[in-house]
Amino acid sequence: VKRASLSLRYDAAGSGLLILDQQALPDVERWLSADDLDAMIEHIHALRVRGAPLIGVAAAFCLARVAATGADGPELVYAALRLRAARPTAVNLMWAMDRMGSVLLAHQDEATLAERLAAEAVAIFDEDAALCDAMAAHGAALIADGEGILTHCNTGGLATAGIGTALGVIRRAWEAGTRLHVWVDETRPLLQGARLTTYELGRLGIPYTLITDNMAATVMRSGRIQRVLVGADRIAANGDFANKVGTYGVAVLAAHHGIPFHPVAPWSTVDLRTPDGAAIPIEERGAAEVRGVVSNKGTHRWAPDDAPVFNPAFDVTPNALVTSLVLDTGVVPTADLVAVRLAAHAPASS
Amino acid sequence: VKRASLSLRYDAAGSGLLILDQQALPDVERWLSADDLDAMIEHIHALRVRGAPLIGVAAAFCLARVAATGADGPELVYAALRLRAARPTAVNLMWAMDRMGSVLLAHQDEATLAERLAAEAVAIFDEDAALCDAMAAHGAALIADGEGILTHCNTGGLATAGIGTALGVIRRAWEAGTRLHVWVDETRPLLQGARLTTYELGRLGIPYTLITDNMAATVMRSGRIQRVLVGADRIAANGDFANKVGTYGVAVLAAHHGIPFHPVAPWSTVDLRTPDGAAIPIEERGAAEVRGVVSNKGTHRWAPDDAPVFNPAFDVTPNALVTSLVLDTGVVPTADLVAVRLAAHAPASS
Repeated sequence: VKRASLSLRYDAAGSGLLILDQQALPDVERWLSADDLDAMIEHIHALRVRGAPLIGVAAAFCLARVAATGADGPELVYAALRLRAARPTAVNLMWAMDRMGSVLLAHQDEATLAERLAAEAVAIFDEDAALCDAMAAHGAALIADGEGILTHCNTGGLATAGIGTALGVIRRAWEAGTRLHVWVDETRPLLQGARLTTYELGRLGIPYTLITDNMAATVMRSGRIQRVLVGADRIAANGDFANKVGTYGVAVLAAHHGIPFHPVAPWSTVDLRTPDGAAIPIEERGAAEVRGVVSNKGTHRWAPDDAPVFNPAFDVTPNALVTSLVLDTGVVPTADLVAVRLAAHAPASS
Repeated sequence: VKRASLSLRYDAAGSGLLILDQQALPDVERWLSADDLDAMIEHIHALRVRGAPLIGVAAAFCLARVAATGADGPELVYAALRLRAARPTAVNLMWAMDRMGSVLLAHQDEATLAERLAAEAVAIFDEDAALCDAMAAHGAALIADGEGILTHCNTGGLATAGIGTALGVIRRAWEAGTRLHVWVDETRPLLQGARLTTYELGRLGIPYTLITDNMAATVMRSGRIQRVLVGADRIAANGDFANKVGTYGVAVLAAHHGIPFHPVAPWSTVDLRTPDGAAIPIEERGAAEVRGVVSNKGTHRWAPDDAPVFNPAFDVTPNALVTSLVLDTGVVPTADLVAVRLAAHAPASS
């Protein structure tokens, strides 16, 4: 069995699980083994593998690889719990581990356990790719010819098993012949926009302009942005959502300028057990990332080496700033209706 | 005659004009000669000397040094025009060069010309320091005990001949015993907040936290910011003002969260000949600054080396987002009254 995306390669009988080192992009395309549990957790922490949907897929494959080495039931439960905790904001990861956990608990004493886990990971991969296509179809229909679209962080083929969430919408619209221009926030501190979204758009030939995060406001005021599309790491039951830090500020700016603002995410990002944004845990990261830049090219510090720093990896955008949510199940049109619509769209398992 | 500030040293009979290389801070305190016209223009372009008030002071001293070498009237007029054009957004620079130009035209055939130009430059320096004290006194009275204050870019002793504009207000309040905490925007792309404001606050022992620009929104939402103080490179007659790129976004965020927002600037920043913000020219800088970071430590590129970039150095904040202007002449309380108040405060020479 094999699966491959822009940033993940799974070959059960061959090279095992490989992830594209997203910290080395855009200059170096380096593939790293991710069969080992500790290695995968370190890849997640170091953001070599990143993007909420991709993390869930990658963790599922990793668990399947650990099972293939002959690990027993308790070892696999422990591994799933460790993977589940590697990125506390990403509900997709928890959802993927819960799916794998269900298979594990149902079949832990059977000889076919490893095969079943591998099949479940493949199913999660295939479903994520299909979800991307569904989001792209719904979202692309929103985009008018000639729009300038601002995006934040990276939400494309690198971040998912398919064509992406927000960037997948842009790609699908572009491929359908809609003329558009993408404004790419660099996304400090980890520069996913400057390093990864530029890389993807360049490969696809989609016109874009890179700006620093603090330039978005003046570009909006100049009339060159007609829409904002971003990803989401977790959507609460009331439509509040967590995403890469900086998203909330973009949402406030979009509202001020009357620009439609849409998170794009699959249903697995919606967590009906989280009532609102205040209940979403926000991961804080190390000071070195803000005192300078940390990448595979090394560390380049520019602030004083003892500068006190605050480094939340995510922020929460309240539902009132959301024009509509683009989900694989459709476009949920207004923030006021989010809770109702989400409930109506919820799969039975939620 | 000697004068010295945190970032400029003038010693007519000794070392001449020296500027502290602000691109080498915070790690290295390196003083560079600025007696030569071409060198000074390059220092301004490379932001080794920066801060709208300081640029005017430094250019005035440079012109005096050129005069001291025996340059004649036409040469000095040409030098003044070149200096005047080195940073098109900074009205202080134009104002300082116009003052020097008036002396030049009145005394160009006299043996005392060089002395008169030097005396005028010293007067500009002394006045700028006094203006800082006046702004600090007016602004510090606004700050309540325990406030969190967000600032953008660098507006302190490095940027002026005195204690600064926005950062001078903070320093004066702190030294008067007001407890406060400063939130420092890193200020991409040139990182004046991360490199320079942190350096000044650290030297002064004022508590601060460094954040990336895109974190300001979530910190405001958390209730930890009660006031925003920023500088201004040019204030138009209607109260619109240009300042370091990112200021406009901060102003929108402050308005959204109900946080008072104040530009702090001397009267020389007000340009009554500019009717509104749309008439302020905005300098665009090179792509390398956005594709990565450019400093005296070298260049560290992280985006694709052909990434299309937009790099405006400044943006314009409309008067509607200004709670009050802190000027050396006093606090102008509401945006609606700005044009009237400014006119009432205008010196006869305007």
